Amino acid sequence: MARIVMKFGGTSVADVDRIKNVARRVQAEVARGNQVAVVVSAMAGETNKLVEYCRSVAPIHDAREYDTVVASGEQVTAGLTAMALQELGITARSWLGWQIAIQTDDVHGKARIHEIKTTELDRRLNAGEVAVVAGFQGVAPNGRITTLGRGGSDTSAVALAAALGADRCDIYTDVDGVYTCDPRIVRGARKLNKITYEEMLEMASQGAKVLQTRSVEMAMKHRVRVQVLSSFEDTPGTLVVDEDEIVEQEVVSGIAYSRDEAKITLVQVPDRPGIAASIFGPLADAAVNVDMIVQNVSENGKSTDLTFTVGKTDLDRAVQVLNNIRDELGFARLIPDQNVVKISVIGVGMRSHAGVAQRMFKALAENGINIQVISTSEIKISVLVEEKYLELACRALHSAYGLDAS
Amino acid sequence: MARIVMKFGGTSVADVDRIKNVARRVQAEVARGNQVAVVVSAMAGETNKLVEYCRSVAPIHDAREYDTVVASGEQVTAGLTAMALQELGITARSWLGWQIAIQTDDVHGKARIHEIKTTELDRRLNAGEVAVVAGFQGVAPNGRITTLGRGGSDTSAVALAAALGADRCDIYTDVDGVYTCDPRIVRGARKLNKITYEEMLEMASQGAKVLQTRSVEMAMKHRVRVQVLSSFEDTPGTLVVDEDEIVEQEVVSGIAYSRDEAKITLVQVPDRPGIAASIFGPLADAAVNVDMIVQNVSENGKSTDLTFTVGKTDLDRAVQVLNNIRDELGFARLIPDQNVVKISVIGVGMRSHAGVAQRMFKALAENGINIQVISTSEIKISVLVEEKYLELACRALHSAYGLDAS
Repeated sequence: MARIVMKFGGTSVADVDRIKNVARRVQAEVARGNQVAVVVSAMAGETNKLVEYCRSVAPIHDAREYDTVVASGEQVTAGLTAMALQELGITARSWLGWQIAIQTDDVHGKARIHEIKTTELDRRLNAGEVAVVAGFQGVAPNGRITTLGRGGSDTSAVALAAALGADRCDIYTDVDGVYTCDPRIVRGARKLNKITYEEMLEMASQGAKVLQTRSVEMAMKHRVRVQVLSSFEDTPGTLVVDEDEIVEQEVVSGIAYSRDEAKITLVQVPDRPGIAASIFGPLADAAVNVDMIVQNVSENGKSTDLTFTVGKTDLDRAVQVLNNIRDELGFARLIPDQNVVKISVIGVGMRSHAGVAQRMFKALAENGINIQVISTSEIKISVLVEEKYLELACRALHSAYGLDAS
Repeated sequence: MARIVMKFGGTSVADVDRIKNVARRVQAEVARGNQVAVVVSAMAGETNKLVEYCRSVAPIHDAREYDTVVASGEQVTAGLTAMALQELGITARSWLGWQIAIQTDDVHGKARIHEIKTTELDRRLNAGEVAVVAGFQGVAPNGRITTLGRGGSDTSAVALAAALGADRCDIYTDVDGVYTCDPRIVRGARKLNKITYEEMLEMASQGAKVLQTRSVEMAMKHRVRVQVLSSFEDTPGTLVVDEDEIVEQEVVSGIAYSRDEAKITLVQVPDRPGIAASIFGPLADAAVNVDMIVQNVSENGKSTDLTFTVGKTDLDRAVQVLNNIRDELGFARLIPDQNVVKISVIGVGMRSHAGVAQRMFKALAENGINIQVISTSEIKISVLVEEKYLELACRALHSAYGLDAS
């Protein structure tokens, strides 16, 4: 007997038939003798509809009221899923964030979970009852409903799995696992049986949309075994686990890409101490996240060019901020460029293997792809290239690291 | 300064524009220096959609989960209305049933309110904050969400007005008041400025759909002054008040009709003691509500005919129950008839005036309308007639009691 948390995303509960399908998946897990807690998202499209209501009522609105409105989507699916389970003869009940309670801080719209009370859930799981938990929501110290930010149901599921000491947290979604690269781009992409937390974290933050970054951080911190698998097919998915559990580690596990970046180049920035702080400080104050940064070597000791990337949605704001302080900074020109894509190769094997970056640069060069910016971490190398090279670059790297299906 | 509860029904909050309109109505009340608590229903159509989800998931479903699902509709409008008020510069916050708390029993799907905690609301109303309360919902002793039954937001509003000691409970709806008869049927129908609780109660239970019966009972019990008025027009509505407040009372205040009745005649029922109990007992056990009953005088001392009415939606079930015990009851024939309508004249003036019934029978006779069943209460006379006479009967009675607009 194991204790399992099963999480179903919006497309998995998109309508009544799919909710009945979810109930059958849960039934199969119960039939195996397992204790099950289910975490559900809102029906696909529902959260967007509710967010749109909020925006039309008031462009800038009270985050507490926003949370009250949008949390209703998960409330509906939790109730319906419990009903569907009961219809199959399974004892089940729905749990809202405030009923459990899933206690969070009061940062409405992107609250963080502080504690999950599990005494009552524990008792009921031990008695064979299935708990259906509304994802994405919690309750603030003052008793108001909070939400955890977009994709927060993944975080709900992992946090619940940690609190309940679950043996596994299964994230059911519309893909059947984590791939070496997006199969829509690289035909030879393979599903990974296992991936380490660190790699999954880099994959998620470098553009792979399969899991919310925060949920992976939480899984890593609490050592929750996470499985990503399909709600629609009955095949094993990808296990996200500790590095120790992976016997033979590839040098590179996967390739991620992100179209969400934009590049800004400041031409002829005076090369004086503190210049970086006076550029990136105001951007941080305006809540613009800066990702990759390259500063050219100053040729004449007087000025240099500075290139960095920001989120595409933040580009206009970043340009405005910098133009406002143009006199102060003293740069000659600002060149924004949305025509870029970031490609990352990821693998914990990099730590112990040399030549990984070299192989990347060589593969790109052989295909005539110019690298605009490079950034690296211990288990990741990212490059910024012109957007038209996205497919070519992914395919070339996928082959270069021997990831193609044989 | 007064303290007012304003309740807005589903058509009044049907979309974002109408919610903004509601906020402006509340703003006007606040501008008059009044303390305001707002009670909102779900957007028109939303509750039906949620009920339909429940039915498709499980035809017979757990009422506790049903309540969790359907209560979400009012949660959405409460949050949005609070936002819309804030957008107008008014301090406001939403309150869900469990947050206040509106404590009910645990009869899910049609819970009754036991107590409303008002300390915090009181404090905030006194401080000038507008409370936006989700109608239709409460919380059971075990912390699960309950709902008060269809139209329950009227009851929420009146109960809140009673608990808060409000000076008035304004029920905003898509009609501008209570009329002497349905204006779609009787062109000369007039809006009443005032009506007594007792009359409103009879009007509501005899078919006028303007207020939920239970909310009128509660208003009467706690002497809450209720006003029915339009969300869309800026005209005074109808005040529902104590009899003492109405100086010149008409004999008849209004005429109501109901198409929701069906008639059952049992032919040649043995005329023996206990026969009525053995007929109506099993119907009550099957949750069939019986309204009007007529038993003919037994001609031969052996058998009699018995006629009664049930709700149209209960007719099939009633017929089935009676046929199942036909041998035991020993009636010769059962004749169901859906082709009937109940028409009621209502007025507290009847208590002190003779000849009211006589005038009704005379008016119907003069128009060639045959009366099938009669029932009376202290302030109401109801007759069952063939459905085709609905308009003719209403118009004839409206004139006969001098209710036509001059």
